[in-house]
Amino acid sequence: MDGCTDAVARAWSAEEFGAAAGEWQRLLTEHLREVMAGRTKVLNWSDPQQSAQAAAAWLEHPLAAGPDGVAGGMRQLLQQMLSAGQNLHHPHYIGHQVPASSPLAGLLDGAAAITNQVMAVYEMGPWATAVEQALVSRLCGLTGWDPSTSSGILTHGGSLANLTALLTARNVALPQSWRDGVPAGTTMVANADVHYCITRAAGILGLGAAAVQKVPLDARRRMDVQRLDDVLIGLRRGNRPVIAVSACAGATPTGAIDDLSAVADVCRRHEVWMHVDAAHGGSLLFSRRYRDRLKGIAAADSVVWDAHKMLFVPALCTAVLYRRREVRFETFQQDAPYLFDPSAPGMADIDVGMRTVECTKRATGFGLWGLWALFGAELFEQLVDRMLQLTMRFRELLNSEADFEALHEPECNILAFRHLPAEVRLLSLAEQNRFQRELRTQLIREGSFYIVQTTLDGMAALRATVINPLTTEQDLRDLLTAVRQCGQRVWNL
Amino acid sequence: MDGCTDAVARAWSAEEFGAAAGEWQRLLTEHLREVMAGRTKVLNWSDPQQSAQAAAAWLEHPLAAGPDGVAGGMRQLLQQMLSAGQNLHHPHYIGHQVPASSPLAGLLDGAAAITNQVMAVYEMGPWATAVEQALVSRLCGLTGWDPSTSSGILTHGGSLANLTALLTARNVALPQSWRDGVPAGTTMVANADVHYCITRAAGILGLGAAAVQKVPLDARRRMDVQRLDDVLIGLRRGNRPVIAVSACAGATPTGAIDDLSAVADVCRRHEVWMHVDAAHGGSLLFSRRYRDRLKGIAAADSVVWDAHKMLFVPALCTAVLYRRREVRFETFQQDAPYLFDPSAPGMADIDVGMRTVECTKRATGFGLWGLWALFGAELFEQLVDRMLQLTMRFRELLNSEADFEALHEPECNILAFRHLPAEVRLLSLAEQNRFQRELRTQLIREGSFYIVQTTLDGMAALRATVINPLTTEQDLRDLLTAVRQCGQRVWNL
Repeated sequence: MDGCTDAVARAWSAEEFGAAAGEWQRLLTEHLREVMAGRTKVLNWSDPQQSAQAAAAWLEHPLAAGPDGVAGGMRQLLQQMLSAGQNLHHPHYIGHQVPASSPLAGLLDGAAAITNQVMAVYEMGPWATAVEQALVSRLCGLTGWDPSTSSGILTHGGSLANLTALLTARNVALPQSWRDGVPAGTTMVANADVHYCITRAAGILGLGAAAVQKVPLDARRRMDVQRLDDVLIGLRRGNRPVIAVSACAGATPTGAIDDLSAVADVCRRHEVWMHVDAAHGGSLLFSRRYRDRLKGIAAADSVVWDAHKMLFVPALCTAVLYRRREVRFETFQQDAPYLFDPSAPGMADIDVGMRTVECTKRATGFGLWGLWALFGAELFEQLVDRMLQLTMRFRELLNSEADFEALHEPECNILAFRHLPAEVRLLSLAEQNRFQRELRTQLIREGSFYIVQTTLDGMAALRATVINPLTTEQDLRDLLTAVRQCGQRVWNL
Repeated sequence: MDGCTDAVARAWSAEEFGAAAGEWQRLLTEHLREVMAGRTKVLNWSDPQQSAQAAAAWLEHPLAAGPDGVAGGMRQLLQQMLSAGQNLHHPHYIGHQVPASSPLAGLLDGAAAITNQVMAVYEMGPWATAVEQALVSRLCGLTGWDPSTSSGILTHGGSLANLTALLTARNVALPQSWRDGVPAGTTMVANADVHYCITRAAGILGLGAAAVQKVPLDARRRMDVQRLDDVLIGLRRGNRPVIAVSACAGATPTGAIDDLSAVADVCRRHEVWMHVDAAHGGSLLFSRRYRDRLKGIAAADSVVWDAHKMLFVPALCTAVLYRRREVRFETFQQDAPYLFDPSAPGMADIDVGMRTVECTKRATGFGLWGLWALFGAELFEQLVDRMLQLTMRFRELLNSEADFEALHEPECNILAFRHLPAEVRLLSLAEQNRFQRELRTQLIREGSFYIVQTTLDGMAALRATVINPLTTEQDLRDLLTAVRQCGQRVWNL
């Protein structure tokens, strides 16, 4: 590197990298050892303003210019990150729908980041593209499709994936809408418990958020199929175009899974695109024991499936899958295949940028590919089975205690529940709700357990997602004790 | 971990991780040493179908069950990835607008992947949120805004970022469009050389891709400001709503930068939202020498800026910045602040999911934060200056040779050029175009240099992006020799 400054030379030095990576390996291994053994807090709560100031303060004085050099600077930065971040690998983390991912998957993502493997056109990421194709092909197969007649992509997260699939649905239902805009009166139909990104998608895609017709739920919080039929009949009578019916396989509040076979029958009868947001529940397809819960998914036109949930890879890695291969270029109709490489029109199927919102795209599939290659598909089956069984056991534990109640039978690894000591049972619902919420806030600020909250039909609840292979039944027993003690402190405030 | 299988135990073992990370550190350091010294190919071309089959073959037999165990399996996977991927750290990589990123930045991204640090709500990623806030604040400051009255987010890539900013613009211009859909006749105005994602955004957002009014370019491929005024006058006369004018700071084909002050004057006069796609050129704001090229950007309503271009961090890390803080919740109007945490409405500003398309969001800012902390903002200034100066030197080299021609003066680090040996000069334009394209394809398949291609007003050209601190002037001289030799082979075919 002729003429470059000392800082540039050090930031692009294999030797400095090697030394810094040595510190990195040592610190991360030690950190994981402590966290996995439960010898740290599970969350590090801190004041948002103070945290932002602390993060900014690190930008003031170049660390590498100091006596510790690059490797020492890296050590300090990692110590800061690790001590102020969340410890998802703590056995007491059973909070959001984000897993205690396998650290081995993270190593592969890290290798891709260090060498900056990206995609868009094949030539830029030949191996990243190959890995994505192999994974998409397998996931299509698990969905029940012939990989040679189906198609898909990987993208950054369930929200972007749902948007992409619904955009494709819109363009198939209304082929002029890509060029000329969305006609007034266009609608979309969805499970009433659908994730907020589905309503957002209607707002983004030009239908308007109010165009989403929510279908009421049955007693198991599944889309009521008779009501779905009624809604579609009503829309047809009103001559209103419907771009898709959006069903759930693992709805956010309780993990409920729609009766996909029944939904498929209705969609087929009305000739409407069937979309399944299986971001959470898709992974059940790896399990011989539980895959029947998604029976009917093979009839869907599009499926969204997060690998960074129950396939236990780091965020973000989401698949958008299409049953019919011929729709794959409908997402962005303007991009005729020749745009990407005029001399090689055959590359359109290989250049993934033709089909994703991202142009330059981080290679998102290496973590999943690596875990699969190391341990086989059986690993995912074992993980799914283990999470679901532990969630069912958790429900039994809750129901065997007088001061707890589980609010539903778990259909996957999500469980909403309430803590109702005798004195709280006497309160109004509003006061009971406040108790649940304050209890949860107190619990996470103390940092001993990480659970989340939800609201079901006006009832505030505690909520756990069992998405951590390090969590044991004993941890769940200890959670009940911790919630009780915390509830006592909240009550006494 | 009671009751879990051997595979699960090994995939979540700190000891197995430590051993695998040791292999990882060793292999990556050695790989970077070879690549940075130019002792490897720059690209590894391979047949797409064969690559996909090879990637799938790794999924057949669990590696960790073999004699090499987890660490040995990791070694094999990394060797496969590194040998089949692209070597952006080779001094001969001057291709796409994707940098030879600092490997140190990748280490921080890797640490975030391994510990799965994510965001959406603050409690899930307190330090990730703090880092993002610190960075957004600095980038707003560099744009010329008071960080306390401006706002922004980080997101996954320039295309998603432009979509997000234009969605905000749409909702501000047409407040009912979020709820009720986009009125027919709505338009967007853009530089004729705008990236394809801007036209896509119009298609996605329900305006229709045909609603984009492209403004012709001047001799320097900048938006012709008089014509911009004419277009806006015409749209006003036709009573057609305009959601935004989209200008370029570093347009894709040649890196041209619009006269942002003049564009701002026109936008102000017409009271239209001014958006600047500064994905590529934003980084010039770090350079005292070159920041004047973006003069006027402070008048923009929204700016998109990729850190994974000239700030040299791995993909993807893009900032969406808003001049007026009060627009920050317009992107998704339906998400009233109370949705995220009913007991803490003040968190709306902190919970980044309120303002990004992503719900669960990978922490994208650690690489940039780490490089900045290690080396200070001066590093980015030095990098920008060095890339621009080397690009200008490249133009001189081209113009001093009879068989090359540079097609424009570089405004940043992108240069389009043609190789025209005497025998090719005699050909028709169509044949000259074919020669440039075949030459480029041949060059990258041989793997000695990585440049790309473009088409300017019907003229096919070779194109280099000098985005690699390891590239020297001598490498550019060697490129000319390599192109000449390759051209000879193509000519003789």
